[in-house]
Amino acid sequence: MCGPPTATVMNSLGHVRPLSMSFAQPLPLRSGAVLRDYTLAYETYGTLNAERSNAVLVCHALNASHHVAGTYAGDPKSAGWWDNLIGPGKPLDTDRFFVIGVNNPGSCFGSTGPTHINPATQQPYGADFPVVTVEDWVDAQARLCDALGITQLAAVIGGSLGGMQALCWSMRFPSRLRHCIAIATAPNLSAQNIAFNEVARRAIVTDPDFHGGHYLAHGTVPKRGLRVARMIGHITYLSDDTMDAKFGRNLRAALGAPTAQPGDAPRYTTQDIEFEIESYLRHQGDKFSEYFDANSYLLITRVLDYFDPAREYGGNLSAAFATAQARFQLISFTTDWRFSPARTREIVKALLDNRLDVSYAEIAAPHGHDAFLLDDPRYHGVLRARFERIAREIGAES
Amino acid sequence: MCGPPTATVMNSLGHVRPLSMSFAQPLPLRSGAVLRDYTLAYETYGTLNAERSNAVLVCHALNASHHVAGTYAGDPKSAGWWDNLIGPGKPLDTDRFFVIGVNNPGSCFGSTGPTHINPATQQPYGADFPVVTVEDWVDAQARLCDALGITQLAAVIGGSLGGMQALCWSMRFPSRLRHCIAIATAPNLSAQNIAFNEVARRAIVTDPDFHGGHYLAHGTVPKRGLRVARMIGHITYLSDDTMDAKFGRNLRAALGAPTAQPGDAPRYTTQDIEFEIESYLRHQGDKFSEYFDANSYLLITRVLDYFDPAREYGGNLSAAFATAQARFQLISFTTDWRFSPARTREIVKALLDNRLDVSYAEIAAPHGHDAFLLDDPRYHGVLRARFERIAREIGAES
Repeated sequence: MCGPPTATVMNSLGHVRPLSMSFAQPLPLRSGAVLRDYTLAYETYGTLNAERSNAVLVCHALNASHHVAGTYAGDPKSAGWWDNLIGPGKPLDTDRFFVIGVNNPGSCFGSTGPTHINPATQQPYGADFPVVTVEDWVDAQARLCDALGITQLAAVIGGSLGGMQALCWSMRFPSRLRHCIAIATAPNLSAQNIAFNEVARRAIVTDPDFHGGHYLAHGTVPKRGLRVARMIGHITYLSDDTMDAKFGRNLRAALGAPTAQPGDAPRYTTQDIEFEIESYLRHQGDKFSEYFDANSYLLITRVLDYFDPAREYGGNLSAAFATAQARFQLISFTTDWRFSPARTREIVKALLDNRLDVSYAEIAAPHGHDAFLLDDPRYHGVLRARFERIAREIGAES
Repeated sequence: MCGPPTATVMNSLGHVRPLSMSFAQPLPLRSGAVLRDYTLAYETYGTLNAERSNAVLVCHALNASHHVAGTYAGDPKSAGWWDNLIGPGKPLDTDRFFVIGVNNPGSCFGSTGPTHINPATQQPYGADFPVVTVEDWVDAQARLCDALGITQLAAVIGGSLGGMQALCWSMRFPSRLRHCIAIATAPNLSAQNIAFNEVARRAIVTDPDFHGGHYLAHGTVPKRGLRVARMIGHITYLSDDTMDAKFGRNLRAALGAPTAQPGDAPRYTTQDIEFEIESYLRHQGDKFSEYFDANSYLLITRVLDYFDPAREYGGNLSAAFATAQARFQLISFTTDWRFSPARTREIVKALLDNRLDVSYAEIAAPHGHDAFLLDDPRYHGVLRARFERIAREIGAES
């Protein structure tokens, strides 16, 4: 066989499968609590080389998982959330690198979280799951690396909250990563960021089906709150321009009617859908409320809120990076108003203050925060070049 | 008496009182429905001159009322929402102008709205209150002016949704206003604006206490939804910078403790308040849910969504203003991301396309959309100069 079909197969990871690893040693958390008897769900792609030097850890953001690339057998729609980046011949090339995706504790995709049994009570944790932080997640990830026999990662990469984890690695385990790749992220959340998180949390917590977080025991799910939370989030992931280009002020066609035309008359309704953007947001909210755990949403928005490495240095971010040794690649997107380029520039300045090796790409992309998940060629070009450099450094050239 | 105390008294409207006027003639609405037997709550300040030429109509935005200036007897905290602008010696000087504030139908401050009795059923309207639009509001305002014997207004002024009404006046009743003053507004809502409104509406509509909008009949109030709606709104009224300056990442002091210091440790909580911004937003939401009617919130966010004068001209805003005759003053604020300067510039361009008399001030103010309610000296300076010009034109100089 030759030509496109083969090329397609060559460029695909094919079927992947989730793995899990249990940890008997309790994980001490930043809050003072400990996490006992926990399990991490993870996946790996590619092959760890003999020197164990080609491992790349991928950190997920709010609502993603360890399923980063490839598809599951029998489910062709199950592509991993960063499948456009990771695979054979892709910018993060699994023919060269051993890629690890891991679900963080407190999330709801397999690693120990609020829906799991609390060993202290033999009931689901629910609202009693301990508050976790970026630092705790990074500690858990480091233990997974230990178990996989990986002393030093070729790189840690992540976008948004995933970028915070990558940065945290560089401060917490300076010698355990060669490269730190942090995309569409920030050194901490602004008051506005926290405010959006708080509104989402209030929508969930005040849903009568939330029952103080012990909804599983009540046989309910706070879906109304989850829907509103997701709708708020979704607005902040997209740029104003993208929304206008995609939906504008288009009216939604009446049910059964062809697509609404610009000349169509509004129906004048307060509770029904009138504009396409409303239909889109409701659909996103509905989908999300079917699979995401409400306590995980609270926990992970708090992981975002609490991340602030400069805090213990009196607000001095440069001091926070004083022990970092990694080489850094920072990337931001011009229309990302959730984690704006200005916030990434704060990180770049702090790294330069420490005379670290840092490259920064500010990509003029229209897609807002979501751009980090898309395959803008300039963006992927920066990442491809970075991983080629890393491959040369570790002798993993193909 | 002389000196400051007198000056203070001179600069105050003193006590004002709400008035109301009932209209027997049904108001035909843009939706095709009609509003029967309606009442408008309004207030006036200053004195209508013999020529009836010095009247200025003030249009309110989402959550304000006819109570624009002055205080009510016995309630010194009841200052009108634009009291910093309107009064003796203030930029809109009630020694020269006769100022009218009117509550729009569908709102909840005295004019006929969803909490009032539907003459067709003798029950509260609730969700059956007809959908109203900016055009309908302007028609109702014009009838009030008729009843007050005012053929031509010296000016119509408003900010945000109030600015939309001012613009609508210039198109709908071109000869009935000399000046149109539209502040922090837009020719229509963007998809992002509609999206924020929609999330707020979903929070209200999915509150189990909403009962399809007939909560009064059920003896409930959808306060949870109203709280979330207000929190979302409040985030969009403020700039990111203002939020950072006012709250930053400050932790809220524990109850009973002195104010939290930057070095204070977080308490690690998902449901309780941790940051000051959270406390502020919750307080705003709680206050709002005590006085604002949920159906009015749905109706008025739809008034915003539906405003789009260019729509019936195939999207050509210049064509929409073809019959306008007023002199225009447009003002926007650089940090207003809800109604950005770019949106006001669209209006300016359309007015200039029609060779209309237009002035535009883009004020570098840090306060976001809320700036239109504050007393930035450059902003108030522009308005003072505009009203002095109007006073000269109508011979109302003091």
